[in-house]
Amino acid sequence: MRDVCVIGIGQTPIGELWDMSLRDLAAKALRDAMKDAGLDGPPEALFVANMLAPRLSNQAHLGALIADFTGWRGIEAVTVEAACASGGAAFQQAYRAVASGLMDVVAVCGVEKMTDATTSPVTSALATAADADFEGAHGASFVALNALVMQRYMYEYRVPHESFAPFSINAHQNAINNPNAMFRRAINEQIYKNAPVIADPINLYDSSPICDGAAAMVLCPLEMARELNQHVPVRVLASVTATDCLDLAGRHDLLGLEAARGSAKKAYEKSGLSPQDIDVFEVHDAFSIMAALSLEAAGFAERGKGTSLALDGEITPQGKVPISTMGGLKGRGHPVGATGVYELVDVVTQLRGEAAANQVPNAEVGMSQNIGGTGATVVTHILQRLS
Amino acid sequence: MRDVCVIGIGQTPIGELWDMSLRDLAAKALRDAMKDAGLDGPPEALFVANMLAPRLSNQAHLGALIADFTGWRGIEAVTVEAACASGGAAFQQAYRAVASGLMDVVAVCGVEKMTDATTSPVTSALATAADADFEGAHGASFVALNALVMQRYMYEYRVPHESFAPFSINAHQNAINNPNAMFRRAINEQIYKNAPVIADPINLYDSSPICDGAAAMVLCPLEMARELNQHVPVRVLASVTATDCLDLAGRHDLLGLEAARGSAKKAYEKSGLSPQDIDVFEVHDAFSIMAALSLEAAGFAERGKGTSLALDGEITPQGKVPISTMGGLKGRGHPVGATGVYELVDVVTQLRGEAAANQVPNAEVGMSQNIGGTGATVVTHILQRLS
Repeated sequence: MRDVCVIGIGQTPIGELWDMSLRDLAAKALRDAMKDAGLDGPPEALFVANMLAPRLSNQAHLGALIADFTGWRGIEAVTVEAACASGGAAFQQAYRAVASGLMDVVAVCGVEKMTDATTSPVTSALATAADADFEGAHGASFVALNALVMQRYMYEYRVPHESFAPFSINAHQNAINNPNAMFRRAINEQIYKNAPVIADPINLYDSSPICDGAAAMVLCPLEMARELNQHVPVRVLASVTATDCLDLAGRHDLLGLEAARGSAKKAYEKSGLSPQDIDVFEVHDAFSIMAALSLEAAGFAERGKGTSLALDGEITPQGKVPISTMGGLKGRGHPVGATGVYELVDVVTQLRGEAAANQVPNAEVGMSQNIGGTGATVVTHILQRLS
Repeated sequence: MRDVCVIGIGQTPIGELWDMSLRDLAAKALRDAMKDAGLDGPPEALFVANMLAPRLSNQAHLGALIADFTGWRGIEAVTVEAACASGGAAFQQAYRAVASGLMDVVAVCGVEKMTDATTSPVTSALATAADADFEGAHGASFVALNALVMQRYMYEYRVPHESFAPFSINAHQNAINNPNAMFRRAINEQIYKNAPVIADPINLYDSSPICDGAAAMVLCPLEMARELNQHVPVRVLASVTATDCLDLAGRHDLLGLEAARGSAKKAYEKSGLSPQDIDVFEVHDAFSIMAALSLEAAGFAERGKGTSLALDGEITPQGKVPISTMGGLKGRGHPVGATGVYELVDVVTQLRGEAAANQVPNAEVGMSQNIGGTGATVVTHILQRLS
């Protein structure tokens, strides 16, 4: 087992990118990440994270496709999928390829092209993250399932809908300063309150957008990162995946987000850290409710108190638990299969001190929690800036 | 880096399994593999190989789904996809998780449910293995693309169509003795010759069937395999993936199957072996032409001589290069995402000496070559029986 560092990051802007295809997006992010790493030539392997291409672009087999299009024909390449947690899961395989000593330089790329789907409606494609037999077959869309969870949270903890406003306000505020974010405009409580309802109680500003984008990273052993000396090395301290059942009805603890709790707990054990040591936390705020649940499951707030933390202003870059620091899934955007990689790119950006106006002061340890489905797969990563 | 062994194998019969769903199939194969390993309780991680569920069953996110349904809620689980090479690619990630020292007991499951597709025709779903923009968009089906390659092979090497008959005859003959095979009946040259054409020159007997099935394996470190002492340990000597471009028009060498050649070459280097040392070779005979090309690319026959090897009777269990020993993709069946795992299960069956009437005498070293698309991803594994 070797120490592994992130030495390169790359990303495309997120949006409705009509002039770029799936492979264009991926190749751009990958080339940028290799350039950022200061490396020429192909990596030894490429791990692609994607969820929807087989449905929306009639394209499976992205590993070889993207490796070739990036100019790396011949290298090992494969796709890793865990619904919206695909990015974190792909990063984990890349991390292991280096940690094992089998490979030195590997690349990860999360890519999703959601806006020019020809074959399948995006809503049905996204529903494949839920249980097709127990949920999808009954017509439950992905937003509807999240709405059930939010409804239960509001009932159980006596929390009004407006308590979730700070999550969206913080995300939009941070997105303004991120040139790659989709929604670079502020919102306020009034705008949040007046937003149209998508699936009661989830409104427009509780939801992340349908969009295109790709993010990429390059990993190598710690010694090599020191030799290259291109950036301050960012080391992977923990990489943990945990799962739960897909269907909400089968959960032992609907609001407990057990896979998030389980993977965070193991990640703390592996790194020897606790929530107090985390300077920046990139949550999976696909819906506001998931941000609240993730904060609670990862130990940053007690059960039912996730929204209080937000209302107290502690989730901003100046707060105790800065989240969605580059806009999160809500403001930056949520190209689903790519999101886990974007989250990690944002963590690295913070740890390198390159977050400009959104910089969390003295960020040394960062965490990301990438959630698949309504919480059935959760991948937690803890990264640390070395000096 | 630790030595890794296969200690458990499981499989469902292959066929039109109307009474079993995707998750039923996977859980059955996984439970059988754990039982075969002599282990109780969950593995530390599950790697699922699947290609078509998002299209044919409206279901992505199979890792968590199958882990939960098998009774292993909570464990790490993820899906690995590389078109028809998904099985080999998933096995590779499982191998690394153990080799790295990060995990002791991991499971792999390849599963595909092709026969009760409700949303998308199987032919369009299979075409996602090819290049959607350069091939699929023009209406090229997967069998049509393979037909182009076969056409070129026959022209280039002056090989008549009937030279491919021995591949199908051998596969069907071996399938008779495999209780899990789909087509347990012999064919002869006359039947092959009179078969209806699917896409000229590919006929019915040059093609593998559309079917359902799941295969599973359990891996652990060598020392643990020795302690458990449930079966003769089968060690992984090499695990190599190589890629090429997806589209046939972009290949540097259409008949060279460069990814197959590249991955076989590296696998020989890693294991210190050569083709002469391989006692059994499970090829990816999705179409007869792919069996011929794989034999040539892996060094068992010179270019253009793959069919000669077959005509000389050398591909039967008693020959110099036994292939498709349990029926192969043609006779046993080709549930695409599961196939790579079935190939490895067959290799282990041979190395354990459990192949009954199809046993290759004194099989000590076995190889599998799992091909994705028309050769864009190729995963080669070499396994060895220890004493």
